[in-house]
Order: sequence, then C-alpha cells, then structure tokens
Amino acid sequence: METSYITQPKGFKACGVYAGLKAKADTEVYDVALIESDTPATVAGVYTSNLVKGHSLVRSIDLINRGGTFRAFVINSKVANSCVGKAGIEDANEIAECVAERLGVSPAEVLTASTGTIGVRLPVDKIKAAIPALTEGLSSGEEAAHRCERAIMTTDTVPKEVSAEVMLSSGETVTIAGIAKGSGMIHPNLATMISVFTTDAKTDKDVLRKMLKSAVSHTFNRVTVDGDTSVCDMVTIWANGASDCAITEGTEDYDLFLEAFTQLAYDLSRLIAKDGEGATKLLEVKVAGAASEADAKLIVSAIAKSPLVKTGFFGEDANFGRVITAAGYSGASFAPDKIDLFISGMPVCKDGILLAFDEDEAMKILQQDEIEISVVLHEGNFSDRMFTCDFSYDYVKINGSYRT
Amino acid sequence: METSYITQPKGFKACGVYAGLKAKADTEVYDVALIESDTPATVAGVYTSNLVKGHSLVRSIDLINRGGTFRAFVINSKVANSCVGKAGIEDANEIAECVAERLGVSPAEVLTASTGTIGVRLPVDKIKAAIPALTEGLSSGEEAAHRCERAIMTTDTVPKEVSAEVMLSSGETVTIAGIAKGSGMIHPNLATMISVFTTDAKTDKDVLRKMLKSAVSHTFNRVTVDGDTSVCDMVTIWANGASDCAITEGTEDYDLFLEAFTQLAYDLSRLIAKDGEGATKLLEVKVAGAASEADAKLIVSAIAKSPLVKTGFFGEDANFGRVITAAGYSGASFAPDKIDLFISGMPVCKDGILLAFDEDEAMKILQQDEIEISVVLHEGNFSDRMFTCDFSYDYVKINGSYRT
Repeated sequence: METSYITQPKGFKACGVYAGLKAKADTEVYDVALIESDTPATVAGVYTSNLVKGHSLVRSIDLINRGGTFRAFVINSKVANSCVGKAGIEDANEIAECVAERLGVSPAEVLTASTGTIGVRLPVDKIKAAIPALTEGLSSGEEAAHRCERAIMTTDTVPKEVSAEVMLSSGETVTIAGIAKGSGMIHPNLATMISVFTTDAKTDKDVLRKMLKSAVSHTFNRVTVDGDTSVCDMVTIWANGASDCAITEGTEDYDLFLEAFTQLAYDLSRLIAKDGEGATKLLEVKVAGAASEADAKLIVSAIAKSPLVKTGFFGEDANFGRVITAAGYSGASFAPDKIDLFISGMPVCKDGILLAFDEDEAMKILQQDEIEISVVLHEGNFSDRMFTCDFSYDYVKINGSYRT
Repeated sequence: METSYITQPKGFKACGVYAGLKAKADTEVYDVALIESDTPATVAGVYTSNLVKGHSLVRSIDLINRGGTFRAFVINSKVANSCVGKAGIEDANEIAECVAERLGVSPAEVLTASTGTIGVRLPVDKIKAAIPALTEGLSSGEEAAHRCERAIMTTDTVPKEVSAEVMLSSGETVTIAGIAKGSGMIHPNLATMISVFTTDAKTDKDVLRKMLKSAVSHTFNRVTVDGDTSVCDMVTIWANGASDCAITEGTEDYDLFLEAFTQLAYDLSRLIAKDGEGATKLLEVKVAGAASEADAKLIVSAIAKSPLVKTGFFGEDANFGRVITAAGYSGASFAPDKIDLFISGMPVCKDGILLAFDEDEAMKILQQDEIEISVVLHEGNFSDRMFTCDFSYDYVKINGSYRT
C-alpha cells in the first residue's frame, strides 16, 4: 500500500495525544496512544522472556491468558511502569478503568502497555487528564493513526507503519496493518519491542496465536540492537472480523494470510534494526550450511551482538576477522578451515583464510547504508538470518543520558 | 613490591624491541617481546575457548601438551597471526627457529604468541631482522623487563605488571611476577587476554597447571570488556625452580603460593578491566544470595556485558532499572520481587522496587572512577563477581578504526 496506518483494516480507530510525559520539543510529540476496535476483537500476543516484566505488560498477559475478547489498547511511552511494586498494577488498572468508562466497555476489555524508563511511577493523573482528548480524538482516519504510532515511540527517529491487503481464494480481501516502536533494549527472546497489528479478518484465538508465533519467529525474534531484552515488550495482533472473511487452519487462505502477515513482520523488524539507537547502517547477518538449526542461530546471534563487529562497520573499517572471531566463540560447531565469508557479495574469507581484497571496492560496500554479512560453513543445510545495526557514538550518547 | 617487573623471580631475562610492526609515535613503542629462562622451565597454560585459534597460539598449545620444558617465549603485538592458513604455523615456526638459534636452544623449547589484527600475515622478515637486538638486549634488569611488557600491549594505555614475594613455611621466599595485555576483545571463556607469569619456585607441571586453573577461575575468567572472546589469548606461568624451593600439593606452601598467585591474577584482571578500551570507570559487578553457582555467574555476566548498563555508567546516569533488566534476562532463576540492588553501597532497589534516592548522593557515587554494582537475590548462598568497564565514545572510536 502506498501509505500505511494502523486503522486501515475495517472497524478500528486510533488516536495519540500529548499528556506531558515526554519533554515537548515540537508539535509532533505524543506520548499516550489508544487503539479501539468497534467490535470485540480476538487478540493473540507474544511477550518478552525477561523474568522481570513491566506491570502494564503483566496485566495484559493475565487478561489475554484468561480468554475473552478486547475492545481497546492504551499504550504510553516515556515511563515503563516496571519495578515499582504493586502500585504498578494499580496504576495500569486505574488507566484502563478510565479508558473503559469513556468508551463504555469493561476494564477487562482494555489492554495496557508501557515503555520507557524503569523504576518510575506512571504519572496517572497526567494520563487520566489526557484520556478525554484521547477518546474524543479516536478516528479511523490516517492522521489520528499516525499520531498513535508517534505516541508509542521512544528513541525511534522514524515512525514504523506497514500494511497489506490480502486477496483470499474467494476473491475477497482482508487488510492487515502494523506499527512498532524499537530502537534500544532490543534482543530476541520471544518478542522484544512493542508492536501492534490489526486485521479485519475473522479468526479464533488459537489460529491467531499460531500465526503470530510463526510470523515473529524469524522476524521480530531475529532483531538485535544491543543484546538487551527489555522488560516491557510484546507483539499483539487484534482480529475484529469486520471483513466477515474467516481464516481457518489448513486452508489456502491461512497460507495467504500468514505469508502477508510474516512479510509485514519482516518489514517492521528491518525498520527497527535500521532505526536502532544511533544506527547509521542496517546489517543483515546470514549464515548458510550450518550443521543444525541451533548452530545457525548461535552464529548469527553472536555476530549480530558483537560490539567489535558493530563498531567496525560503523567506522567503515574492513576488519573482517572480527566476524570470524564471533562465529568462533558463538558456541556453534564448525570446522574453522572451511568457513567462507562474504560482505555484500564480496568474498573476504575462503576456507578460513582471510583474502586480500580491493580496498576501494571494500570501501564502496562499507559506505552503503545496508550491508549483508554472509557466512557459509559447509557443514550442513541449515541457515538463519538476523538484523542488527552498527554501533556508533550516538548509541553511547543516547544511552549515556537516557533519563534526561 | 614497590616496583614490579617480569624478571623479578630469579633466573629470568626479558627484552622488548621495535621491529616496525606498530606505527612509531614515540620512543616508548615496542612490538616484539622475549622472555628467557636461564634453565628449562615447567610451563602451564590456559587458552581461549574460541573455536578459531591463532596460529602462534595453536603452536604453543601443541608444544605444551606434548610435555617437556621451555626456555623462551616470543610474543608480538599488532598482527594476530590468525586466519591466514598453514602459512601462519610456518611463520610462527620460522620465528621460533630464529630465536632458538640465537639462544642455542631447540625450537621446540621456544613458545610463541601473537596479538593484533586478524587475517594479516606476520611480517616475518621484519621480526627476524629484529631478533638479534632482541636476544642481545635480554637482561634481568628492570628497564628491559618494562620494554617487554610494552611490546605486548595493543590498545592498552598503561603497562600492567605485578609481583609478590611469598614467604614459605621454611622462612625461605619465592617470587612470582606477572604481566598482561588487555583492553579489547575481552570476555571470559577460559583465558581471554595475553598474560605471562614467571616464578622461581620449583614445581611439576600438574601442580602448576592446577594452581593456574584455580588462580584464573575467578580472576581472568571474570573480566569482560566487550563480550568478544579473542582467538589468540592465553595465560601461562613459567616455573624455573631457580629458588630451589619446591611447591607440592597438599602442603601449607601450596596454599601460600596459590593465595599470592591468585592475588596477582586478581590485580592484573582489575587492571585489564580498568584499562578496557575507552574505559573511564572500573565496574565491579557482584551478586550474593544466588540459588546456584551457575545462576550467580549468569547474573554478573549479563550485567557486566550489557551495553545499556555500560553506557549508562559512562554517562553517569542513575538509570538503575537497566541493571535489574539485565539480571532478569540473564537466564538465572530468582524471584523479581525479592531482588535488592546497591550501587557502591547506596541502596537503589529493595524487594524489586526501585527506590527514591538522593540525586546528589547518587551523582557523587557515579562520578567515582571505581563503582561497585551489588545485587542480592535472597535465594541461596552462592555469590560471584565480575570486572568490567563503562562503554564510552572512545570505545567506538578505537574500534571503528582499529586497523589504521
């Protein structure tokens, strides 16, 4: 689609307002987001694997696990609502109740999420004061939807919105849209950022959950910015059935829907890595020829996390031994004298021996803003891929003074 | 001891020369080091666990594993002699042969080590041309020993030299000295830097190896700078028996020697972390009350590796939720509502709830150049400790242009 926003699927409204949580540098700053489904929606979610979980997230996990359907999702940025004790659940409940009352739904139909600084109480009064404007501003229009995406952003520099129309076997179409916030504290262990998908397809919870797990497995679960798994993050998909087109398992439509959904998850994951904190380059790390699925994942993960690899690419320094080094300590099993390495297609290591290469050609490749790091092991048939970004001065700057 | 150098134990000589491997910015630049024992020495070593190992290192591991005694150790910086194929072993052999000939010993009595850029052939001719000056310069004096330490340094900003006299139960003394290079590509998996100890104690290989493994386990194996385990690194201890005092297992002398040796390993590890690439602060991460030894190690390792924790301390930003977050994703098992956290003694988290604290007092602590991060879990009796440093602009700068 030419332009994408979260309310493109039928029967959804959204809004974002400024409640005074973020410092207001310009008129495009929002910090509380709301998504509403006109009718009860089925919701599936995947959540951070961190043992420490944010209170707004815990509340949503409990509600989703209990079953039932949902009408609204309220998300704030700037304050993570984590590590504040029982008060954190009470704060999330109070906000959900306030939203529920305004929308005329049950508080148990309102999910909550928070992202930002850990260990600070939510400014509940400020958020509650902003809720009338939030609910009054709800609209299926593009502008309100873009405000919703901006309201969940923290250190993101660009909004991340995707959508697709899926033509089903009957010729009818359903729509899927997604938004995400990313940038920092990003590493895959289930889901590691806040992302919301909406669709007007009709499907039951188990099918939706199965498709979500499949869609995130090699997309959201293959992005790392700094190796830090956040305490707050989740990916949910909301299906309200407004299109009246049902997706059931074992059908052609299931495959069509899942393919489009996975592509959107892939697109958002790439956007998150490319907009990683301080990033100047997107790095796509690939491995082929691994002896097992586990080995393939270990290798892409070690390379994508290595500060030496990431600072080297930031500096456009052709120091490719660091990639081989990371593969070597990844824990994967392979013969070091069979490993090949290509940088955006240029061979730089063959049979474990780093090759002489044209420095000018290397520099041309290193100056691109998207670089592919491709390792071939010749051990088996397993492959994997992970997205990350380079590691710059700005990463240090952003994270040396995040609270201020 | 007031001043420390590697030739303080009896019967050792050392030297460092400039062979033209490093760029020469001032007169204090050296790049090839030699340590000689007057008599055959017993040697024990621990090595990087990286699957990819440097060729000079592989040659030394093979020789040490074969048994026998050793007379000399030649170490170069700037070029790692890794990932260059069979030529790498041949280059290391050629250098060892040249040293052996000059010293009148067998090439199999000469160990080799290299550290620096991966994937580049050793400039064997330059090194061989410098060997006469290297062997002629061998001396038990302090000045030559300091040049030896400077010759193994890469991005280190300060030399790292330690020593101790150990008074044995008989009243006689033996001496232990150690040097190390550290700074980058440092993470514990066995040993992860180049360090050499000398001692004039007399001991057999098995006892020496046992003491080395014990001494490094909570010192060198508890230092991380960037989480990258190098392909080249090793710790060796050379015991030449020149004091005629024997250390055997199960004796008071064994305990006395091991205690002093472990303290020196501890001191060098701390120096390595404090001089980590771009470091402005030493961070000592401690955990107590863990349910198991494995959990304790997982937690200190996750906190010490976290780029968010490390950049936060660089920025003197009191963002302590990041420490709790890292504990949460470490893989260790604990109740998040029982975790306590202290920063250099100041309580900042109690029962999983981040506390309000005096920002002025926090700033005073954060401005120190040594900070203790202490986690208490209340789950069991296991504790651990790891050294790391903060993550600064200079880390990015150093590693964005390492080759040049």
